[in-house]
Amino acid sequence: MKNSFLIISIFLLLISCNEKTTNAVFVENKSELKEAIKNAKPGDDIVLKDGIWKDVEIKFVGKGTKESPIILRAETAGKVFIEGVSNLSFGGEYLTVKDLHFRNGYSPTKEVIAFRTDSKNLASNCRVTNCVIVDFNKLQRDNDDFWVQFYGRHNQLDHCYLAGKTNGGPTVRVDLKGIQSIKNYHKIVNNHFGPRPRKGGARGETIQLGSSFTSMSPSNTTIANNFFEECNGEVEIISSKTNFNEIKNNVFYKSEGSVVTRHGNYTMIDGNYFIGDGENENYGGIRIVNTGHWIVNNYFYKIIGENFRSPLAVMNGIPKSPLNRYNQVTDVVVAYNTYVDCKSPFQFGVGTNIAQSAVLPKSEIRSARPIRTTVANNVIYNSKGDETPIVEHDKADGVLFKSNIIGNNGLYLKDDIRLKPASFTLDTISENIMLPNLSSVDVEPYNGFDFDLIKTDLVGNSRENNNAIGATVKADITNPNILDKSKYGATWFKVDAIVEGKTIKVSPSDNLSEKIKSANKGDIISLNEGKYVVSKSLIIDKNLTIQSSSENKAEIVFEGAENTPAFALNPYGVLTLKNVKLSGNGKNQAFASLKENMSNHFGLSVSGSEISNFNYVLKAYKQTFAETVTFKNTSISNCENGIELSEETNDRGDYNTEFLTIDNCTFNNVKQNVIDYYRGGYDESTIGGNLLVTNSTFTNCGAKEQNKMLLNHRGIVNVNINNNTFKNNKIQFVSILWGAKNNVESNNTLINSGKIKTEENLVMKLMY
Amino acid sequence: MKNSFLIISIFLLLISCNEKTTNAVFVENKSELKEAIKNAKPGDDIVLKDGIWKDVEIKFVGKGTKESPIILRAETAGKVFIEGVSNLSFGGEYLTVKDLHFRNGYSPTKEVIAFRTDSKNLASNCRVTNCVIVDFNKLQRDNDDFWVQFYGRHNQLDHCYLAGKTNGGPTVRVDLKGIQSIKNYHKIVNNHFGPRPRKGGARGETIQLGSSFTSMSPSNTTIANNFFEECNGEVEIISSKTNFNEIKNNVFYKSEGSVVTRHGNYTMIDGNYFIGDGENENYGGIRIVNTGHWIVNNYFYKIIGENFRSPLAVMNGIPKSPLNRYNQVTDVVVAYNTYVDCKSPFQFGVGTNIAQSAVLPKSEIRSARPIRTTVANNVIYNSKGDETPIVEHDKADGVLFKSNIIGNNGLYLKDDIRLKPASFTLDTISENIMLPNLSSVDVEPYNGFDFDLIKTDLVGNSRENNNAIGATVKADITNPNILDKSKYGATWFKVDAIVEGKTIKVSPSDNLSEKIKSANKGDIISLNEGKYVVSKSLIIDKNLTIQSSSENKAEIVFEGAENTPAFALNPYGVLTLKNVKLSGNGKNQAFASLKENMSNHFGLSVSGSEISNFNYVLKAYKQTFAETVTFKNTSISNCENGIELSEETNDRGDYNTEFLTIDNCTFNNVKQNVIDYYRGGYDESTIGGNLLVTNSTFTNCGAKEQNKMLLNHRGIVNVNINNNTFKNNKIQFVSILWGAKNNVESNNTLINSGKIKTEENLVMKLMY
Repeated sequence: MKNSFLIISIFLLLISCNEKTTNAVFVENKSELKEAIKNAKPGDDIVLKDGIWKDVEIKFVGKGTKESPIILRAETAGKVFIEGVSNLSFGGEYLTVKDLHFRNGYSPTKEVIAFRTDSKNLASNCRVTNCVIVDFNKLQRDNDDFWVQFYGRHNQLDHCYLAGKTNGGPTVRVDLKGIQSIKNYHKIVNNHFGPRPRKGGARGETIQLGSSFTSMSPSNTTIANNFFEECNGEVEIISSKTNFNEIKNNVFYKSEGSVVTRHGNYTMIDGNYFIGDGENENYGGIRIVNTGHWIVNNYFYKIIGENFRSPLAVMNGIPKSPLNRYNQVTDVVVAYNTYVDCKSPFQFGVGTNIAQSAVLPKSEIRSARPIRTTVANNVIYNSKGDETPIVEHDKADGVLFKSNIIGNNGLYLKDDIRLKPASFTLDTISENIMLPNLSSVDVEPYNGFDFDLIKTDLVGNSRENNNAIGATVKADITNPNILDKSKYGATWFKVDAIVEGKTIKVSPSDNLSEKIKSANKGDIISLNEGKYVVSKSLIIDKNLTIQSSSENKAEIVFEGAENTPAFALNPYGVLTLKNVKLSGNGKNQAFASLKENMSNHFGLSVSGSEISNFNYVLKAYKQTFAETVTFKNTSISNCENGIELSEETNDRGDYNTEFLTIDNCTFNNVKQNVIDYYRGGYDESTIGGNLLVTNSTFTNCGAKEQNKMLLNHRGIVNVNINNNTFKNNKIQFVSILWGAKNNVESNNTLINSGKIKTEENLVMKLMY
Repeated sequence: MKNSFLIISIFLLLISCNEKTTNAVFVENKSELKEAIKNAKPGDDIVLKDGIWKDVEIKFVGKGTKESPIILRAETAGKVFIEGVSNLSFGGEYLTVKDLHFRNGYSPTKEVIAFRTDSKNLASNCRVTNCVIVDFNKLQRDNDDFWVQFYGRHNQLDHCYLAGKTNGGPTVRVDLKGIQSIKNYHKIVNNHFGPRPRKGGARGETIQLGSSFTSMSPSNTTIANNFFEECNGEVEIISSKTNFNEIKNNVFYKSEGSVVTRHGNYTMIDGNYFIGDGENENYGGIRIVNTGHWIVNNYFYKIIGENFRSPLAVMNGIPKSPLNRYNQVTDVVVAYNTYVDCKSPFQFGVGTNIAQSAVLPKSEIRSARPIRTTVANNVIYNSKGDETPIVEHDKADGVLFKSNIIGNNGLYLKDDIRLKPASFTLDTISENIMLPNLSSVDVEPYNGFDFDLIKTDLVGNSRENNNAIGATVKADITNPNILDKSKYGATWFKVDAIVEGKTIKVSPSDNLSEKIKSANKGDIISLNEGKYVVSKSLIIDKNLTIQSSSENKAEIVFEGAENTPAFALNPYGVLTLKNVKLSGNGKNQAFASLKENMSNHFGLSVSGSEISNFNYVLKAYKQTFAETVTFKNTSISNCENGIELSEETNDRGDYNTEFLTIDNCTFNNVKQNVIDYYRGGYDESTIGGNLLVTNSTFTNCGAKEQNKMLLNHRGIVNVNINNNTFKNNKIQFVSILWGAKNNVESNNTLINSGKIKTEENLVMKLMY
């Protein structure tokens, strides 16, 4: 204990002014930690020794005070790693955890961090700050958990970085079951939500506030000043399901999803930035269900998502909706927002499915249009005129439009009552922030009921004087530097820079398996010409390219056992295979995921290759997922089965890949499951997967296909089959397209190959 | 204008200190009133001349201030009568109406008093005080209206007396459609809600707060310090359908209904008195649906209602209920209540209908038990031990019971964990208030989450010190004089005392019709022996008894036209007929309501009489209602039709009489509709009518009955058929009883008369 004086001194220097700690307790192992927690008093500062803490379940139970919380923290911020089967839970009040890094592991329970230790011991006024959680995923995708779950009241998650959740379950969730957790005033602020990969199906939200079962409860949670970057988990980034939540001043940056008021009412969505790129149609805006929300002062840039993903998506409800479905939109205010170069930013009646009355029960039909809703004082600008800035999937006759303008660069709109044409330019504030200059526009803001409660604008200027329509008042705007990442997340944490991979030359005489094993993420394995006989699966557990070193294809002959793959796609295994001949023994597989414990996604891109003599070309097992699977310029022949991505048969909206692309390939004598890609369950809010089959030729395939269909893609929402030739395939249908969704075909040539049929409505199992 | 100085002086004296009025404007007619309103400024005092104001629609539009409201009032409180086709509406702010009496008329619109003039002009900070509305009913029962409807915010109804509403629609209602009307903080305080007669079916609430369609909205309405007397309109006295309402310190006195949290959540029901008589099973307590309600400090005396009407009725919900049905009970607190001589005060799983799964859709099955609910610190006392103080219609396994005691006078209960037996006596505070003396009982109050927010007890004593279980703390309690009616309603209004009727002797030579016409309410028409030939219907439009003056029955021979009645039961016509022979010509009717415009109820009680040769004995037309219809010791013979109360065929839960009683009667040769009494529509919350058929004999009846049933009572909830003889009636069934409801029979003798069948579940039309 010699150093204790020094340590205490340093600690006292580090601690912020309003949190007095009087006693530092340094702990080196689990039992010391346990003992320190047991004895902790207000003002104690429990310090974890730098290093890796493995398989540790921290139950932080204690009672601090507002002035003197109990703090648990790293000796050096970011130098304490929580790994293995570990978690953290709070029980008590005024407890703060900081500076920890969760990685290389997963929680043994339903939560990595829980603001309770059990159902009776909840936390209040507890805080997690300056921590990081990366890739702390359960081994199986369907083994859902939450990385941070709030219970109790007045708890806070701030200045943390969370990224890489691939298993089911929202990253952060607020639970409201029980009166101890209502009116919670939790704060989720100043965090950096880093990339959350596409999950494939539901339960991939970044933040979820409650559930339909507690959707009547006042929550009063604040989500403010966070940075959401590539939060692509599912169609909802934030799913607000309770009442009186505030979502303010956040940045949604290139995130494939929307802020959704899914259940509950009276959400305030104020002063957020939604930044897209004008190319990716999956970046969304704000989608509205239910009553009493205010959407004000928000800025949308190059968000071109449509329908569910449109910048403003106002849904149709189900009349007298069941608790867990869609209530009608009523009493909503959309005011003072600015939309720059967005596509059809105002969409109403989103989700209407009146046309599907024949296949759905009455309690599923979204026919109730928004009522008592005001859209006022908004500004739309399009560099290139938009012909349909307002899209009515169902009539917006319950919406009052007032003082909205559109700068449409000369494109005349019939709809000039709802959107008044105006001529104005943009002021460039920063790369992504271009604000309308309305000095020449003479439109008075509409003063709706309670509009005087909108005190400030997007950047915090008062609306009292110089008020104007759009997200900002008439004033000089300084660059808010929304992309300055130092403003969000843990101070000490930097995301790894992408390192350029090196090229590793390999010859047939080398041990290919070893070369792959020793390669680093991003490397290129360059195969010299020749034959590589492989008897055991090559393990792909990182991002790797394998390609022939010259135009002459290297030849990989896989002699491995029945139903083992040439390339075993492990968690993180993203393989790019180029210009290679790959053959099997007719009973084994070209590519396959692991059968279980796929704790992270895989990926596959094959081009310029020849694949033959396998039982399966690709076999994805249940609970595995690839963001993309692509075959280009590749021939596939003499295989028992083709591309098999159809294991998510639980009909909960899940599927095995987000994007399956077949471009300029030939399929010859693939006997069944030529393409088998499945998503099941009636779930209007799962709006993937995506199948593109183009410029390809299928000959003599599907001979053993039991369902007589060549391309099986039942339930996949986006399907495009074009410019292909189907010849002598003994099947009844090449494809059955789902007309009500985005399933299309064009310019296909069918010779002795059945036909392509469109079914407007697919009968699916109800998920809810 | 000579008197203006005097008038102004008097006004200034009358006006309360914090409401400054500077200018009195005396108006004598409608146009002056209109002009005065048009010109009104803050501080104006518009004075209506004493007298009857007929057919006046007052649109009170203006803008007062908090310090200087605009007042509209009677010259003398209670001397201005609003009559005819009249109403009052507010548009603006800080407007007060006082001292008016609405009577002898009805509103031309949906409201008698509306806190808006149209959908765009709502009232805020407006007030109705010291006013009276009596019997201001629409002419037709199904022509629903509200006597007072709130819109906007911060409006108030106080010190008013409202009684006698018989048509459909809650007496007072708060509307929440639109953001202008949420968070309204309306106050309904210090009013006297006088008798509201049974309506027969739904839509007879005394106060309704919102609807299921606005059940997600914060309302924050307060209902406090009111006196509810004989509010018997329907099963709900107060129907709370929105959030955060407060129902505090009210007295529910002999009112046939309950306070119900029908939709919406987080209602505070605190410190109310529920006073019954230990005899009437229709007096109810508090019925709970939905989430987050607190039921604290309430006092229940001799409330013996069961099931829906029990002192505490906690309902089962429908899993994932549709918006307009039954949400599960969650997060409810029932604490510190006292129950004295109530029957089975705690009932759980009320409304469970799992057994009816065969006849109801899944979305109607109430199978979701209460969860996360706490019942603590309650005291039950029974002078005579209650064997089942807790009734579980479905299991109460989601309820936490803590520190509840029962003084059951020696009756041993197995259930001593949930209700701890204790021995204690009562202190008599007043006639209806008997409070447990717990000086010898040692039970610490359970300190549940947020229980420290329960600051005071039933009578306002602090719970900080001397806290105790039950509605009151340990302290000397002074009589709260809850029945002192001077504390409630309009200061100037007294309910008419009941005047003893006089007896009017009538001989066959007199004009009976004129005698009836000139009689007063409550009089007795005493018929001397002899034959009274009547050629036109006798108008009964008040409470009247007609009886023979001696044991020898007077004989009334009705020679009126086909399908006209001997006794025409008009609005308010409540006829007691005793000891009379009444005969017709075979084509006319003995008793009938009007065919339309029955703006108030009728009633009929026949005893010791002989009725013969009519087409109908009683014909009640659509939209007419009698609280009771009774036949005792009476013979009915040779009629085409019997007692016909089956016109409410719209299947909305309505019916024509609450109680139909047949006791010791004989029915001979009544060819069809011998008894025809109907209620239609699946509506679990309409829990009437009531049919009793006892000690009677039916012979040779039903010969022309098309449905082959003697006693038709489809849909009637309470049916008791006992000790009757049915002989030689050519029908298939005497009765088909509804087993799932309260339909029973016993000791009936059936000779050549078909049979009595019980059907457990009746298939009925869904109302919702």
